[in-house]
Amino acid sequence: MTVLDHIKQEIDTSFDQKLPFPTREISIRKNTILTNFGQTEQNVYFLKEVIVLVEIESQKGNRILDFFFRNSFFASYSSLLLNRPSDVCISAFEDCVLEVIKYKDLKEAYTHSLIANKLGRIETEKLYARKVKREKELLTQTAEQRYASLISSHPEIVQKIPIKDISMYLGIQPESLSRIRKRLFS
Amino acid sequence: MTVLDHIKQEIDTSFDQKLPFPTREISIRKNTILTNFGQTEQNVYFLKEVIVLVEIESQKGNRILDFFFRNSFFASYSSLLLNRPSDVCISAFEDCVLEVIKYKDLKEAYTHSLIANKLGRIETEKLYARKVKREKELLTQTAEQRYASLISSHPEIVQKIPIKDISMYLGIQPESLSRIRKRLFS
Repeated sequence: MTVLDHIKQEIDTSFDQKLPFPTREISIRKNTILTNFGQTEQNVYFLKEVIVLVEIESQKGNRILDFFFRNSFFASYSSLLLNRPSDVCISAFEDCVLEVIKYKDLKEAYTHSLIANKLGRIETEKLYARKVKREKELLTQTAEQRYASLISSHPEIVQKIPIKDISMYLGIQPESLSRIRKRLFS
Repeated sequence: MTVLDHIKQEIDTSFDQKLPFPTREISIRKNTILTNFGQTEQNVYFLKEVIVLVEIESQKGNRILDFFFRNSFFASYSSLLLNRPSDVCISAFEDCVLEVIKYKDLKEAYTHSLIANKLGRIETEKLYARKVKREKELLTQTAEQRYASLISSHPEIVQKIPIKDISMYLGIQPESLSRIRKRLFS
């Protein structure tokens, strides 16, 4: 799906004009870094294929902060919004196809375009709802409950992503996740 | 500050029209519940004065999920966006003055109004950036670091809010917070 298709399907079904900003399609290899630690984000990406990974540095080594799947927008968003060096690293978990939107083009469209603002609002609402869900899970649920919730919302994670990476996302040790999996699936 | 003032100062300094949705001002007493657990959110609020509190139920008793201060928008946002019963309770931490916007009026404005979409986009971006910051802190920082960060970003919390509530927000026991405070201030 393209950004234009996405707008017509998800944002405004009556939209019949051109995009209010330019986009450029790129293909990248697995493990390619799109935005590195310390780099100031300049782009917003629309993921056509397949999975990207967002990592953060911590005292206990890098942790996985988030995954993004096809048909979603992503960026080092805090870096973009606050115009400061990124504290996350975004990389391709598999070979990926993306549409790239320059943030300066998007900001220009935001000054006058209704559809650009609708898109920005609705996509940010989705991102926000995901973060709120994740925060509540971190504060109120056990690792076992969080893992069960991950399986039900993203079964593809469990198939494609190594246990080590999933445990980093859940904030627990790989051994703890192995024990949880034994309990859940026995 | 009113919603209209806020738009003129923060969203679009050239805006010189009327609000694209009606608002209604209300004053409420300390501890008044605006949105209760299980209630589906119907409104978005703009806080003129002073502090509201967002709580969530957990197995270990209610936890404080968030605070909002003057000149900010708030709601049980997941309930609003997903049109389902709220899993948080929002109440007045002190006597408060609010402007109330009915979500159905806001949604109607979203269909055609550029300024309504700009407002929705920018305010959601701010909420999102706060949540990302909080998530990173929960995943990577110690309770002591999170407390120091809270003091620097919201000194009024430390003055106005009891230790018991701050420790609930940080996700630690009140005794642990007392030890942290002794270390930091000795």
